[in-house]
Amino acid sequence: MKHSKIPLSQTVVTLCKTHNIKHIVISPGSRNAPLTIGFTHDDFFECYSIVDERCAAFFALGIAQQLQEPVAVVCTSGSALLNYYPAVSEAYYSRIPLVVLSADRPKHLIGIGDGQTIKQTNVYGEHSLYNANLKLDLLGKKRRNKDDELPILKSIENKLEYFLGLQKDIQTYNESEIHDALTVAKLESAPVHINIPFDEPLYDTVEELTIKPKPFNLKSRIEKIDEFEIDSLLDLWHSAKRKMILVGVLQPNSIEEQWIQQIADDDSILVFTETTSNLSHPDFFPSIDKIIAPLEAEEFKALQPDILLTFGGLVVSKKIKAFLRQYKPEHHWHVDMLRANDTFFSLSKHVQLTPNTFLETFFSKVTHHTKSTYKSSWLSVREKRRKRHQSYLKTISFSDFKAFDSILKSIPKDSQLQVGNSSAIRYTQLFQLRKDISVFCNRGTSGIDGSTSTAVGSAVVSNQRVTFITGDLSFFYDSNALWNNYIPNSFRIIVINNGGGGIFRILPGHKNTENFDTYFETKHHLTANQLCEMYGFEYHYVSNEAALNESLDSFYSVSSQPKLLEVFTPSTVNDEILLDYFKFIK
Amino acid sequence: MKHSKIPLSQTVVTLCKTHNIKHIVISPGSRNAPLTIGFTHDDFFECYSIVDERCAAFFALGIAQQLQEPVAVVCTSGSALLNYYPAVSEAYYSRIPLVVLSADRPKHLIGIGDGQTIKQTNVYGEHSLYNANLKLDLLGKKRRNKDDELPILKSIENKLEYFLGLQKDIQTYNESEIHDALTVAKLESAPVHINIPFDEPLYDTVEELTIKPKPFNLKSRIEKIDEFEIDSLLDLWHSAKRKMILVGVLQPNSIEEQWIQQIADDDSILVFTETTSNLSHPDFFPSIDKIIAPLEAEEFKALQPDILLTFGGLVVSKKIKAFLRQYKPEHHWHVDMLRANDTFFSLSKHVQLTPNTFLETFFSKVTHHTKSTYKSSWLSVREKRRKRHQSYLKTISFSDFKAFDSILKSIPKDSQLQVGNSSAIRYTQLFQLRKDISVFCNRGTSGIDGSTSTAVGSAVVSNQRVTFITGDLSFFYDSNALWNNYIPNSFRIIVINNGGGGIFRILPGHKNTENFDTYFETKHHLTANQLCEMYGFEYHYVSNEAALNESLDSFYSVSSQPKLLEVFTPSTVNDEILLDYFKFIK
Repeated sequence: MKHSKIPLSQTVVTLCKTHNIKHIVISPGSRNAPLTIGFTHDDFFECYSIVDERCAAFFALGIAQQLQEPVAVVCTSGSALLNYYPAVSEAYYSRIPLVVLSADRPKHLIGIGDGQTIKQTNVYGEHSLYNANLKLDLLGKKRRNKDDELPILKSIENKLEYFLGLQKDIQTYNESEIHDALTVAKLESAPVHINIPFDEPLYDTVEELTIKPKPFNLKSRIEKIDEFEIDSLLDLWHSAKRKMILVGVLQPNSIEEQWIQQIADDDSILVFTETTSNLSHPDFFPSIDKIIAPLEAEEFKALQPDILLTFGGLVVSKKIKAFLRQYKPEHHWHVDMLRANDTFFSLSKHVQLTPNTFLETFFSKVTHHTKSTYKSSWLSVREKRRKRHQSYLKTISFSDFKAFDSILKSIPKDSQLQVGNSSAIRYTQLFQLRKDISVFCNRGTSGIDGSTSTAVGSAVVSNQRVTFITGDLSFFYDSNALWNNYIPNSFRIIVINNGGGGIFRILPGHKNTENFDTYFETKHHLTANQLCEMYGFEYHYVSNEAALNESLDSFYSVSSQPKLLEVFTPSTVNDEILLDYFKFIK
Repeated sequence: MKHSKIPLSQTVVTLCKTHNIKHIVISPGSRNAPLTIGFTHDDFFECYSIVDERCAAFFALGIAQQLQEPVAVVCTSGSALLNYYPAVSEAYYSRIPLVVLSADRPKHLIGIGDGQTIKQTNVYGEHSLYNANLKLDLLGKKRRNKDDELPILKSIENKLEYFLGLQKDIQTYNESEIHDALTVAKLESAPVHINIPFDEPLYDTVEELTIKPKPFNLKSRIEKIDEFEIDSLLDLWHSAKRKMILVGVLQPNSIEEQWIQQIADDDSILVFTETTSNLSHPDFFPSIDKIIAPLEAEEFKALQPDILLTFGGLVVSKKIKAFLRQYKPEHHWHVDMLRANDTFFSLSKHVQLTPNTFLETFFSKVTHHTKSTYKSSWLSVREKRRKRHQSYLKTISFSDFKAFDSILKSIPKDSQLQVGNSSAIRYTQLFQLRKDISVFCNRGTSGIDGSTSTAVGSAVVSNQRVTFITGDLSFFYDSNALWNNYIPNSFRIIVINNGGGGIFRILPGHKNTENFDTYFETKHHLTANQLCEMYGFEYHYVSNEAALNESLDSFYSVSSQPKLLEVFTPSTVNDEILLDYFKFIK
């Protein structure tokens, strides 16, 4: 088998294998050639080539989001790794294990005016949970080629490292740093950065490995149940009359049915589920804003919980955040193995368990359900809203709102829905999705910058067919996502094109002025047509309800290309229809 | 006149005006609404709206590159400002004043799970020369709306700041930080980052300013001539037999003709000019690689200078770097007001003057020219190479090399040439450009990530018409650059499309294997046709010499749209033709 001749490259590749990192997303470059050679010649790895590093990293994020295991991105030196940063920050806040392997120049060639050279070490700041700054393997270098030594030993620092290296063994240092970084990526489910200096020659290969990393024990995440903690929470729970559970971003099937049912059986528990929570039960409350938006002070007081139990990732609904910040629960417990946000300024307990373990431990000890009308009274509000929602749909003309209704109903059974940020996810939250659809959205930073690439990455490794819904600005922003040779033919994109950032029309700006149109709504007349032609997507477009429904009928049928459906909606009515909706359903 | 009601926004906008920052590139968002309102309602500012922040920052960089004055970019909170980072790093290494104005959430809403929120402070690390982390103007807040105070004073830290603020005056702190940041941007010609927290409401406006910043003295860069230093350099100069001047990236007309002529008159001085140096004289040596590439050890020894004098920015030619690192000059002086790189591991003096001031001071004191055959002998090498270059052109078939010959000859008189990175700039360096053409290229980080956007920005403010030459990967990478409403109709793009990263074929990889094609050359079958249709460019394409020359004849004529010419070249012969070139001209 072919390997890079450079021991450091061999070490990185070998340890990635040891850590079972299979998916490697490579962007072209010369400095990273040793890594590219190593990964692409070993069948253990599934390699992908993506030119635009911003897309490459979001694509990798999509893979990691689905597999829930570390995925690596590999780039050359210079500004390349800066283009990873938006995805790194998304991975940080969404807790997705993304491993950045950036090639770098040797130290003595940094800061002296060489091309494609920046200050790469620790470049992601606190958004990377481990920064392994590997050292040039001078010992390896020495063994390889005596002539190459002089330029490397230019700086005093390098000389010192070289001679210290004789005792300390740079190889050992590098192995241990790589191992630690990969361990953190997995255990903390977080982005890590491994910066890897290579000196020329970069393209030499050997048939046999010249390194043999010492064996490491791979660690797994261990859950420790604190019985005392659970008991003290139980006391509070038993005495509380109103318990609210709020669930943010969660992987499908995170919670066993048994606990879902037990929660649903308790009249004193009200469960708000975000669309991204992938959690549902007939007695739960999806479409949070639909419940909350029309409420007034007295009703908010009636909704205010004694105990708020949260799990899952970041919450989309601004309205429930505003509500809970003003009407604080007495206790807020957040259940998560790793981190807890004090989103409502009332966090009293971070339970460091997975939600399922917590619910299993906790609910097997719950002795009685508090009699309460908490849930039933809000279920009747929910029913009223649902009826009003249906009535409203009959009164309105074709618009974003109406389009989402048709589209969300059309999503194929047992398939996956990826949703773009901004208006796309906010509209989606207003509708009740079928239980068989799993939903994903980049809610870590909620950026519009990489949603398409993430959806593509997800589609490449998911067993389910994937439909991606996005707004027009977000779609055009990440248009390079389509520059990708791995998109499955079953992949579907639906672009809601309202000619600009329609969401700004809902905010309290000064719409219908030139200033607003240009700098807030960012009006445009672009369509996805040409991008589809360029990147081999079957293109369809509609601009009214009948055409949309007709188009959706055949949109998911088997095809020899992926497909994109562009839905043109009238920007001038969308905002009024949405604002009126919240009045109507009251 | 309309202003944001938020005093901090008024302060930022007012101080940008005081500092004469006129060009403001805005990306849409809600958190930055106070800034957008402020900048776009004041006719002093020229505002631009660009959705993709990566493009927005490179576009701003192009403006600043031309005007040599600070240009601001304005974005919302979250991952938006990370998309600026590639351009920030380019600005850092190319010494271009780029002012990042990032809106942020108030501190108490950071790190608690709110959307579009990351750790924005100091996010560009050492690539930003000043990081002003402004404080929420609580005093202003207090005066505006008493109800809003409670949520702000949530954290102990905020409370402390609030009460300290009563004495220390946050307003004064913010004014002084903004002033210092803008001063550094201008004096150091560097990127700076001003992070600006805003609390809701974000869209309120007032008719009159409610702030009155205290007056600041605007500083200018001051040159201090050290006569003693100059005299000591003169002594060395007079006794040296071989002086080499190497000029990197330089603005056109940086050096007065008088000094250019005086240098050219000295037989002991050999001047190597990079294409990006915008410096020329019949006796100078452009196309450095053409001279250096075929040399052998004895010839290198004959070329080795006693004194190397450098000015300008980063050097493209890898060959001259390799040569000077191996055959070091006794003395290396770099002349630059701000920084000096030890590119050849032999820097002995950093003269902190502008090149023109140095040359004026220095050459008016030079008493005699050393008799030498240094220049004349190399001029004869140059002549030989030029003849061989012309002969070679007659022997080769249509290829990248041949296309560049035709294209570079076609550039209109007195116009500007922007060149993409990687192969585009390297090919350009092999040809002698006419003196009336000014040349620019992002050589700070030499990335392929934002060259088109930079060229567009330059074209928007330049008095000259602009032609941009780029390779295909670089062009598709930055395709969002065309999503821009400000592109002048005179703007021209020439894409050399060799179906992938042709430059990799020249490197010592393992070409013509599937592995190489996919992960190094990154083969593709894309064309720029659809992007032109999408973004309103007139599209032309050619794939042989006759068609190219015919197309170039009318390519620069006045048009009602900008134009793009795509030149398809055969990837399989390009590398051989280039490698043979260096053998042939020997």
